This record gives sequence, structure tokens and C-alpha cells, in this order.
Amino acid sequence: MFAITVRDHVMIAHSFRGEVFGPAQRLHGATYVVDATFRRADLDPDGLVVDIGLATGELGEVLGGLNYRNLDDEPDFAGVNTSTEFLAKVIADRLADHVHAGALGEHARGLSGIQVTLHESHVAWASYERDL
Amino acid sequence: MFAITVRDHVMIAHSFRGEVFGPAQRLHGATYVVDATFRRADLDPDGLVVDIGLATGELGEVLGGLNYRNLDDEPDFAGVNTSTEFLAKVIADRLADHVHAGALGEHARGLSGIQVTLHESHVAWASYERDL
Amino acid sequence: MFAITVRDHVMIAHSFRGEVFGPAQRLHGATYVVDATFRRADLDPDGLVVDIGLATGELGEVLGGLNYRNLDDEPDFAGVNTSTEFLAKVIADRLADHVHAGALGEHARGLSGIQVTLHESHVAWASYERDL
Amino acid sequence: MFAITVRDHVMIAHSFRGEVFGPAQRLHGATYVVDATFRRADLDPDGLVVDIGLATGELGEVLGGLNYRNLDDEPDFAGVNTSTEFLAKVIADRLADHVHAGALGEHARGLSGIQVTLHESHVAWASYERDL
Amino acid sequence: MFAITVRDHVMIAHSFRGEVFGPAQRLHGATYVVDATFRRADLDPDGLVVDIGLATGELGEVLGGLNYRNLDDEPDFAGVNTSTEFLAKVIADRLADHVHAGALGEHARGLSGIQVTLHESHVAWASYERDL
Amino acid sequence: MFAITVRDHVMIAHSFRGEVFGPAQRLHGATYVVDATFRRADLDPDGLVVDIGLATGELGEVLGGLNYRNLDDEPDFAGVNTSTEFLAKVIADRLADHVHAGALGEHARGLSGIQVTLHESHVAWASYERDL
Repeated sequence: MFAITVRDHVMIAHSFRGEVFGPAQRLHGATYVVDATFRRADLDPDGLVVDIGLATGELGEVLGGLNYRNLDDEPDFAGVNTSTEFLAKVIADRLADHVHAGALGEHARGLSGIQVTLHESHVAWASYERDL
Repeated sequence: MFAITVRDHVMIAHSFRGEVFGPAQRLHGATYVVDATFRRADLDPDGLVVDIGLATGELGEVLGGLNYRNLDDEPDFAGVNTSTEFLAKVIADRLADHVHAGALGEHARGLSGIQVTLHESHVAWASYERDL
Repeated sequence: MFAITVRDHVMIAHSFRGEVFGPAQRLHGATYVVDATFRRADLDPDGLVVDIGLATGELGEVLGGLNYRNLDDEPDFAGVNTSTEFLAKVIADRLADHVHAGALGEHARGLSGIQVTLHESHVAWASYERDL
Repeated sequence: MFAITVRDHVMIAHSFRGEVFGPAQRLHGATYVVDATFRRADLDPDGLVVDIGLATGELGEVLGGLNYRNLDDEPDFAGVNTSTEFLAKVIADRLADHVHAGALGEHARGLSGIQVTLHESHVAWASYERDL
Repeated sequence: MFAITVRDHVMIAHSFRGEVFGPAQRLHGATYVVDATFRRADLDPDGLVVDIGLATGELGEVLGGLNYRNLDDEPDFAGVNTSTEFLAKVIADRLADHVHAGALGEHARGLSGIQVTLHESHVAWASYERDL
Repeated sequence: MFAITVRDHVMIAHSFRGEVFGPAQRLHGATYVVDATFRRADLDPDGLVVDIGLATGELGEVLGGLNYRNLDDEPDFAGVNTSTEFLAKVIADRLADHVHAGALGEHARGLSGIQVTLHESHVAWASYERDL
């Protein structure tokens, strides 16, 4: 099994609802350093999992939809806690839509899975893994 | 599949028995930077894999039982080589006990697996992965 | 010249005023991974620059005054852009106050300087350095 | 499941063929920081996955066959794009040969799998995973 | 004293002349992860050392003049060893030219110094520091 | 001013004397990831600060005198606390002796300073800087 990963980041504000969150119930924010991993069993005709330039570009597109925003005000996330693990799934699902729409190239239709990891600090990170 | 990881560290002394260990048969020590990963298929009602604060606290508890100790003197490890991979299993198993005892909260009973990685330097690390 | 550095982090929300900031004029947030460095010419009677436990504790105290907050609402920062470099100075100055108040121990009065670095992502960081 | 990973690096020149590669069609180069992971279900009689010293030595041997070379001139890679993911497989397969030849010790025959990750920069890496 | 640093990378081929270089006399290559640091005594009217977006853009411009190239063929480097430390100076000097030309904004004329660090692997890096 | 840095590591056991050390008064240990920086105003005739291979070799030599040892038993350190900052000075001074003895080559006599940083974990490090 082959994989490639590209890294970018996003800076957002949000708050959490629920006693378990303690002071994180206040409006605060985070930098998420985001790793997007693409997997497939065999390389494409160019000898690649997926073009790193295209993968980086599409990850940037997806993160652009979240960057410099207060997630508490985003209609897509109304009524949910935008936890690190939840956002990992949001980003993975949006990347999967981009793959299915052909934005990573025709060969990218041979990808079998995506994993997205969000580092919220040097001591905590979360990920979500799904099939394509 | 979702996962969250929290990081902490522990500083211990120990020695190894066996020719394969060469100079590491002498009493020496290590800092282990420890990553504990918790996995589950779906998020809990708070939108979490497990609360990062609780996970960090319980990892700290488990590491507190090893920290600033000479492992050669610990009855639990009599007659075994406390290799990095062995200690990864010790920590994973102790964390699993904490999960089963409810120390990570009731929702944490929905966790499906734990992985523990110990970084012994910038060029070597070991891990152990188990079901819950 | 000797130095020790301890690392912690803080998660805040804020916005910027000024065209130069582009989309960062919107309310967003950041995780700052914070490195506090303490310098002195000679070691203290314990063979230390400063006790790492005390240094970590006081850095945590200072960061606790910022953590999980919207800096736009903090009276201390009314009318200023809480840029990464500005916050590095805030944290360095508050740590200096702690040193002068004796919170890092009597020997810490022998410290000659402090540097604080805030990593806002894996590709950008800022620092402020001052005498004590 | 247990695993250990050792890290080393290699510095090579190469070029790519295919429009997808853009300016990377020109002769350029890369440092690959290489992580080799060895997996097995149970520890060997010494309490190890595999000896870290031996693993490091064999990884160095394999990388020595690529280091400080223009891969465009290597007969082994004639007519192929030596992409990061392709090279991950080359290194994993050569390490597997070393395991099968006994170079990592007799106990290493109990290894079940190898994964090799090549970091081509701080924002992109690729890996290949295989059974033994 | 304040500073900000931005990070990018560049991938080049080259060879060295001189016995001291051993196998690095062969054509090979490197990824340099490049950190550009800008210093000044006081913040500008926006509360910044220099705008991180502009700094990142200009660093990208400078690296674009080196990226995906065989430095042995570059007229600028004829007859010199393009060592990591030499390239750190090249990049710092070119960034200084951009500052003097106003490419980092009018406020950037208040910068007092630049430092450029090139990481050639996880175990070696070089830097060059100069006044502005 | 130019600088190059090389990284290696060392694994030792030790204990501390003094109430300030709390549980670190017990025998424990550490991995120190060690960065040795060499500085000079101008490059040598090969275009280098110092040969990275030689620098790495001499750092390895110096660390070999500490590696896999209980520092409490070393006559050189009788009666002193082998704190991270103390050990940074020991390593810097021993490297300086190697430079003066010509072990880093004749050109290395043009070096002006050395800095040694010891990372004792992902959240604490210490350094010592001296002239040559």
C-alpha cells in the first residue's frame, strides 16, 4: 500500500458547549496544522499516488473555506461542537468530494482512502480515516 | 475511524541483559516522549473521541508510575528487558485498565483501541497497538 | 552564556485592524506554541540556570491569563493588534515581573535575560528578547 | 502489534518525465529523511521487535546504495520516475531482502511487515507498506 | 529586540569540488527547508516586525530563483561550492535586496537584520546573519 | 556571521542532589538530543564553516565519552549536579578542545565560537555558548 501526505494549516475561532470542555466553553481559537494522506494499492501511470502539487492545491482550497473564520457563525456547523476530530472528518469528506469531482486528476480516481490529521498543539492531535 | 493523540514524557534509568545490547548493558537512561492514541468508529455525544484533558491526565498518571525511576529496581519488571517496545505495551495496557475502570469518563467505554508510541531519540521510536 | 528553554501552548481568538491583514481582519484564532528562554552568565549554586519545574509553572501561570480567551475583549489589549510578536513581548514582560517578584526562586534574580518565541504555525513564528 | 522505527537520510539528484511534473522535469534534487518501520505480533526472546542498532545499520546500507547519486544515471531506475513513493517501495523491498538474508539477525525472521516513509520536505512525505 | 521567521523549502541538484567532500563530489541534491528571520528593535505602526504574508511571498520569490535547478549550471555560482552555508548567504543577501527595494512594504525599511537558516536534513543545518 | 549545526544524541543515567530537584533526586535518566553549532565570520577556502562530516564525527567522539553511562559514577562529575545546562558546557568545552587540537581540520582554527544545545524532552532544553 502506497500513501502520500501533504501539510498545510488553518487558523479559526470557536467555542464549545458542554461541561466537559471547561474553559474551552469560552470563545477561543486554534491553529490546526493539517496533514492530508492519500492511499492507493498501486502507483498511477506517472509513478505517483497523486500529484503533490494538485493535492496541496486542493487541500488549500478546502482549508480556504474554514480559514480566518469564527466557526460558531458558520451555518454548516450550527449546533455541533467543532472539535478537532470533528473537523478532521469535515476536511476528509470535502477532500473526498474533490477527488470524486476529478479535481485531483483522472488518475486520482484510483485512490482508495484518505486520512486527515489536525495538530492542535505540540501535544495533541486528532485524525479521521475513510475509504474513497 | 477517528483517533486522538496526546503527548507527554517520562525520564527513567535502566540497563539491558543480552550481548545484542552492547554498551546498553551498562546502567544508562532515556527520555521517552510518549504519544497515546485512542481510537473509535464514531464520536461520543460531545463530538469527541475522548476528552483531551482527561486523556492527558490519565497518561500523566500512568507515566507518574514510571517517572524518575531506575526500572531495574521495579518489581514489576524483574527479569525482563525494559526495551522501548516493551514499555510501550506496559503503558498501553495500563491506559486500557484506566479506560475500563471509567477514569476517562463513561463515554470512553466506546473506545475501540489504543496505540502507544515511545520516542527514545530523534532517530528511533517504538509502538504497541491493542484493542480495548 | 547559559540558557534554558521551556515550552507550553495557549489557544486564543482575536482579529486584526488594518488593510495589511486581509482576511485576518475577521475574528479567527491561533494556537501559540510558546518557548520561554532564560539566560545567565553563570550557573546558580544548584548547577542550574533556573529550575525547569518552576520555569514551567510560571510560564503556565502567565499563559493561563491568556488561554481560552478572545483577546479582542481583554481590556489590557484595547486598541492594539495582538500580533504574534506583540504577544511575545507581553509574555516576556509578564515573565520578567514574575522573576523580579521572586516567583522563580531567589537564585533566579541572577538571570540576565529572557526570550519568548511564539510559533503560530509550522511555517511562522515570532520572538521578543529583553534584559532582566 | 509491536513496531519500531529508525530514521536516517539520503541526498540525491533526479528529474521527472511527464507534464504533470512542471518545473520538476528539470534536473533537481532532494533530501529524503527516511523512516523504516518494522512490525511483529510478539517480541523476540530479547524483548525486542528487532535490534535498533542492526536496523539502523541495515537502513544505512540500503541508503548507501542511493546516497550522493544522480538517480537518472542509475541502471536500476532506467525509464521510471523516481518519485518519493516509488523510492519508498525500493527501500522497503531492499530492506525486506536484508531481513530474508538474515542481516537483521535470526530473530528478525519473525517480523511480519515493513513500512518506509520518505519525507521530501517539511510539508510532503510518502510511504510504502508491505508484508514480509 | 523583535523577530519574525517564515519557513519555505527549495529542491536543488549540485556537486562539490574538493577532497573534503568525499562522495558529495558526485552530482547529488538536497531539499533545503529555509527559515528567514527578520529583526527590528520596535514594532511598526501595525504592531508588526513585517507582514508575514509579504515575508512569505518574498521568500518564495527568492527561492523560486533556485528551485528545481542544477546549481552547477547556474552562472551566478560558477566556480564556487554551493554549500549550505554559502546558499544561506545568497538567500539572505537577495532578501536584503528585496527589503531595500521596498518589496516588503515601506515599514520594512525599519528592519535591522536578517538571518537565513537552511536545514539540509534532520541532523544538519547552516545559517547566515547580516545587518540591513 | 555564518554557522553550521550538527545533531546527535546520548543516553545517560544520573541523579540530582538538592531539594529543588524533588523526585529527580532519585536515580533516573535522559536522552539528550544534542545540537552543536560552530560559528565564524567568513567561510574557509572550501566554502564551509567546517566540514559537516568532521563535525558530526567529533561530536560523536565527545558524546561517546558520556553515552550509556551512569554519570553519578564518573570521576569527572564527582560532587556536581549533571544538569542539562552543565552538560551543555561540558560538551562545548570538549568540542573546543577538539577544535584546538586540530581534529576538525586546519581550517577549523578559524572558528570563532561554539554553542551546544541539549534537548532533554519535547518541552525543555538548555544551551551553553562560548568563544573559541
